[in-house]
Amino acid sequence: MSGLIRSFLAPANTPETQFPLNNLPCGVFSDAEPPRCGMAIGDSILDVQALEARGLLRFGGTLQTGEWTEFMALGPDAWSRLRHDVTGLLAEGSPQEAAVRPFLRPQEGVVLHMPFRVAEYTDFYASRHHATNVGTMFRGVDNALPPNWLHMPIGYNGRASSVVVSGTDVRRPWGQVKGPDDSAPRFAPSARFDIELELGAVVGVASDHPLSVTEADAAIFGYVLLNDWSARDIQAWEYQPLGPFQAKATATSISPWIVMSEALRPFRCDTPARVVPLPDHLCDAGPMLFDIGLEAALAPAGKAETIITRTNYNEMYYSAAQQLAHHTTCGCPMRTGDLLGSGTISGPQKKNRGSLLELSWGGKEPLTLDTGEPRSFIEDGDRLTLRGAATGDGYLVGFGSCTGRVLPAVNDPYARDET
Amino acid sequence: MSGLIRSFLAPANTPETQFPLNNLPCGVFSDAEPPRCGMAIGDSILDVQALEARGLLRFGGTLQTGEWTEFMALGPDAWSRLRHDVTGLLAEGSPQEAAVRPFLRPQEGVVLHMPFRVAEYTDFYASRHHATNVGTMFRGVDNALPPNWLHMPIGYNGRASSVVVSGTDVRRPWGQVKGPDDSAPRFAPSARFDIELELGAVVGVASDHPLSVTEADAAIFGYVLLNDWSARDIQAWEYQPLGPFQAKATATSISPWIVMSEALRPFRCDTPARVVPLPDHLCDAGPMLFDIGLEAALAPAGKAETIITRTNYNEMYYSAAQQLAHHTTCGCPMRTGDLLGSGTISGPQKKNRGSLLELSWGGKEPLTLDTGEPRSFIEDGDRLTLRGAATGDGYLVGFGSCTGRVLPAVNDPYARDET
Repeated sequence: MSGLIRSFLAPANTPETQFPLNNLPCGVFSDAEPPRCGMAIGDSILDVQALEARGLLRFGGTLQTGEWTEFMALGPDAWSRLRHDVTGLLAEGSPQEAAVRPFLRPQEGVVLHMPFRVAEYTDFYASRHHATNVGTMFRGVDNALPPNWLHMPIGYNGRASSVVVSGTDVRRPWGQVKGPDDSAPRFAPSARFDIELELGAVVGVASDHPLSVTEADAAIFGYVLLNDWSARDIQAWEYQPLGPFQAKATATSISPWIVMSEALRPFRCDTPARVVPLPDHLCDAGPMLFDIGLEAALAPAGKAETIITRTNYNEMYYSAAQQLAHHTTCGCPMRTGDLLGSGTISGPQKKNRGSLLELSWGGKEPLTLDTGEPRSFIEDGDRLTLRGAATGDGYLVGFGSCTGRVLPAVNDPYARDET
Repeated sequence: MSGLIRSFLAPANTPETQFPLNNLPCGVFSDAEPPRCGMAIGDSILDVQALEARGLLRFGGTLQTGEWTEFMALGPDAWSRLRHDVTGLLAEGSPQEAAVRPFLRPQEGVVLHMPFRVAEYTDFYASRHHATNVGTMFRGVDNALPPNWLHMPIGYNGRASSVVVSGTDVRRPWGQVKGPDDSAPRFAPSARFDIELELGAVVGVASDHPLSVTEADAAIFGYVLLNDWSARDIQAWEYQPLGPFQAKATATSISPWIVMSEALRPFRCDTPARVVPLPDHLCDAGPMLFDIGLEAALAPAGKAETIITRTNYNEMYYSAAQQLAHHTTCGCPMRTGDLLGSGTISGPQKKNRGSLLELSWGGKEPLTLDTGEPRSFIEDGDRLTLRGAATGDGYLVGFGSCTGRVLPAVNDPYARDET
């Protein structure tokens, strides 16, 4: 594992920065000017859109659109060249330091936007600990892990229109619920609103045929933190037989920075040992998970946060490459901007679980926050924040954070004059 | 029910045409020139894109994009005005007949394209006969209708990237399957490839809050025929617990003509009596189903077709308006171009079933085609064609057809040199 790549920007060379030159994640920011493409470096953002406009980067104008989709479609050679070119511009001793400095903006005070247009959103269910925990609660211990689970990554199509960037408030949803003691379903605000701590893989290369695991891995542009907000009471009542629908369609939050696959290369690791052999077309073709430390924090309104879980992306049973390969087996066309949620990333111990459903065991074992308050599910005003970083030799490759505050449900979803 | 609106075009005035002036469906066609917006009239197409370019129609340039999405976003007043204006142009005795005639093209010989960009695709499960039939086969007669089914329209998110226009060949998919006698799953071409005869509702008006049934009805631009190609063997193995995924992502075919909601107004009818009362926000708010006769035909390669089923959209338990209303309960944002499949439309009798799975009862009772051949599921080379029309007083409002031919599976999905 190589060490820190030093920049002429001192804040990018500290061991605690999420954004050293090794990282260079892709985002979209605005200040007085409209949203444009940038890359995070230390506590600054490099305005790569302006750099391309001035001829200091050359990517066919794909960085001029105010988001990364067109650039992502160029494919791995262009992705690698961008990292190479920007590393050259920002490196310690760069002869272009004076030319580049005018294109740096402080991160503080800018607004971060969706970094790409989500074409479609798919969510998987690929941590064995999570699937076992949830399966036990929803279907009993004997039916916890579905019979197909060890043979392919189980996933479902989510709702791309509901994907929002970190910082967006999330309104507690209404929905149809039926508790075990209810004689009939009720239409009510969700009382079991939850997070799912996930990593999202962003597809860069479109395809219209089945991809091998190696091809799928190469088609992934990068990764984001992803919180798949989930209404557990709506989900429990609706999900059989066709899967989650309204329980998962209120919002899915992603981090504003896409960490490119290449930046994560030093942190690649193997999936766990297979319980049963996978079919050939889904077998690992090299280490395709990543050692990325992850955490989720909950802060009640106006109060300090509590870290409610710590886990690691290396806990997954299936890699994003395996998920994408499976996604294409039937010939399903994939497009630039498709977003694949890993599924909730739960580790082996209770403190490593990636959802409140698991952490509070369906509300039967409420957490106690550092403020002394109990929590089974999200309460109005709570702010939930995901964070993640891979740890190198004296440097981090971080995702920043993915945060959102939960607002109370509206009084009447059909009152058009309610403010 | 008012009668035929007569046009100066004689073929639009026959009782057997699918496209009288009462209909005016929206499509995209190309000939020597690139794809552009048109409306079917008799055996012709009116080039409304050219008409707008010449100032004979005025919709802010939304008809200039080669598809209908931007026009659809204008909303119901514009939709109604377009029908009014074009009816005026094409009516018998129209003072503009001479001006309009140069903008008419014969339907024969043009290529029809996707009429709109599918934003996202959702598929429902809303015929009680179909849900009962499939539930009986997949889960046994005691668990046929899931407990939630009578309380809300059950649906799942499908894959927009897989939606294709009628006429597109469909390649038999590979997938993971496990029969009841298999000790382990196999990766193989689907041996139980099927159709689902559906109607698709096309959302015109975007929204970001829960819609009432009345609001949802008004947001629907129009309807298409929809064939949700389904690999039953892949589906049976993968669908629990998160719903259909690869079984439904090879292709979904739609008719090239969108019949606007307003053209179907004379054919509105009520949903069947409720078995249990619906919650207030999903209750019918007027007749929102339509009396539309539907059929599916199967033609083996090089042979005559057999009508394998006849059914009617008035068999649905939930209307598209109720489905869209339910889709938005959690605040799920809807966008112009969202496509909502009705779910397979099966009627009460065996001959009214909308899928081969039901018609052949899972392969146990093969059909006999008019050619004498048996069919349980689709065989390579088979052409499947859906047709539909509402019958007025001396005229039809038709959807044309939605057809596709099934090609054999590739020998090796991962051989990149296979042609």
